[in-house]
Amino acid sequence: MKLLAVGTVAFDAIETPFGKTDKILGGAATYIGLAASALEAEVGLVSVIGGDFPQGYLDMLTSKNINIDGVEIIKEGKTFFWSGKYHNDLNSRDTLVTELNVLENFDPKIPASFADADVLMLGNLHPAVQLAVLERMSQRPKMVILDTMNFWMDLTWDLLMEVIAKTDVITINDEEARQLSGEYSLVKAAQKIHALGPKFVIIKKGEHGALLFHEGKIFAIPALPLEEVFDPTGAGDTFAGGLAAYITKTGDFSFDNLKNALIVGSAMASFTVEKFGTVRLEDVTKEELKGRINQFRELTTFELTM
Amino acid sequence: MKLLAVGTVAFDAIETPFGKTDKILGGAATYIGLAASALEAEVGLVSVIGGDFPQGYLDMLTSKNINIDGVEIIKEGKTFFWSGKYHNDLNSRDTLVTELNVLENFDPKIPASFADADVLMLGNLHPAVQLAVLERMSQRPKMVILDTMNFWMDLTWDLLMEVIAKTDVITINDEEARQLSGEYSLVKAAQKIHALGPKFVIIKKGEHGALLFHEGKIFAIPALPLEEVFDPTGAGDTFAGGLAAYITKTGDFSFDNLKNALIVGSAMASFTVEKFGTVRLEDVTKEELKGRINQFRELTTFELTM
Repeated sequence: MKLLAVGTVAFDAIETPFGKTDKILGGAATYIGLAASALEAEVGLVSVIGGDFPQGYLDMLTSKNINIDGVEIIKEGKTFFWSGKYHNDLNSRDTLVTELNVLENFDPKIPASFADADVLMLGNLHPAVQLAVLERMSQRPKMVILDTMNFWMDLTWDLLMEVIAKTDVITINDEEARQLSGEYSLVKAAQKIHALGPKFVIIKKGEHGALLFHEGKIFAIPALPLEEVFDPTGAGDTFAGGLAAYITKTGDFSFDNLKNALIVGSAMASFTVEKFGTVRLEDVTKEELKGRINQFRELTTFELTM
Repeated sequence: MKLLAVGTVAFDAIETPFGKTDKILGGAATYIGLAASALEAEVGLVSVIGGDFPQGYLDMLTSKNINIDGVEIIKEGKTFFWSGKYHNDLNSRDTLVTELNVLENFDPKIPASFADADVLMLGNLHPAVQLAVLERMSQRPKMVILDTMNFWMDLTWDLLMEVIAKTDVITINDEEARQLSGEYSLVKAAQKIHALGPKFVIIKKGEHGALLFHEGKIFAIPALPLEEVFDPTGAGDTFAGGLAAYITKTGDFSFDNLKNALIVGSAMASFTVEKFGTVRLEDVTKEELKGRINQFRELTTFELTM
């Protein structure tokens, strides 16, 4: 099976209580691609970058068997740049700079070899771009996974509703689920979001884990309790990427397998936050991932019978 | 095995977005006792009430095999009264009234039949009272469980440290764990709290569940996702009571059994929040509890192998 992911390939400059970076590699599609690569899923990216994007980063991606035929290079343009500063608790952040640059007129090109991808991951982007990608697939993917955020709810509500209606799985955080549904209870919020289209609703709660809702059933996972979170940037994209890649790799679209995909995505994200940017995710081995999934099992398993 | 619980038996007046009550039955020891009764654990309460406390409430407690020999009645005094109003999200509340009344000079009396209790639950109270109870036991209980809150950290730090040093299990919420330890990371916070005495540290995270820490091991449970939380009052006490009663009933003080106790306490608390005050908890049947524990299993079980 094949996974196509659309999203940003970008520069990030990050400041946390532990230090700061210059412009480093970032972007939703980058994290999704790297998470998929760690799972050895066949993955292609659709994105756009400027002439300022270092060849070395592209080489790193291709060396990891990430197909970048769909990453358009606009020579005279500049790559999307985001800069943010995290507060001391690392649970909130201020955006310092957002330079859309080449992203402003992003017209996504689907590489022929991925137009029939089985799983489509619509990374957090303008819903018009997400819709364009959906329309340009040669056939409807078996599973469409959407990541979005409050920004698009505020600015492009109607377009966002169009994308959501065409989506099988949506991943959003708890505050966004409340905003999208107008319900405080996450159980009720998920019911309303189901009614908008997605059969699977995944609500991300950061350090508190995530919830998966499907046909009245609920699955809950904690986040792995970490001694230190060094840099949360990309954790949500890594989670979505690990999830999408695991589904692609297994070709199993059942609720039970989506549970597994949640664990894998969450385990993967626990690596991303250990260092700045993509550095740690680039290095994850199969053994390490296995170890972290075992930690999940130990963390959540109980034998109670009554 | 026997469980002795010290805490308030009180009047509460509660206002939530769904309605408000006059003075109704409340208090930490009341919730702990009722949770223990639902589990058919042998439980005795140590508390103090005034002459204004209705005989009907006492009769209800004894009808549920809760021993109230340790509940002193001060005829000329008034019962402790708390009144609070919850915000719309039910996650925070304002205290409107706190009348200590007979609690101000509470001198706890341990009934002879429970002075050798195997498990001692020190419900949220002034640490001087908690210490007095500990000292008045005829022998050191096999397990001492402490519930406390930020209020005592602010006002009676040194006394609280004395109690904590004599405690096997402490249950506090996440903000309180951070305040007690000076650490933001809950993993680090638990390490520091272990160093103060308790071998088991339980961190309650409300709608996000709870964490259990013991000798470098961690266990995490989500809260049952509820469509409606009607009144959160007493949820923490019910959790602690269910936990203590399950340990008492099983007589097993191992980490694996404390995991089970966390599930039972959490399942029990999920009933308490369904109606005002103690009403729902008074009615919980074994079958209902079993059902909710099964819900926990469904909520958290996954089959992933990698």
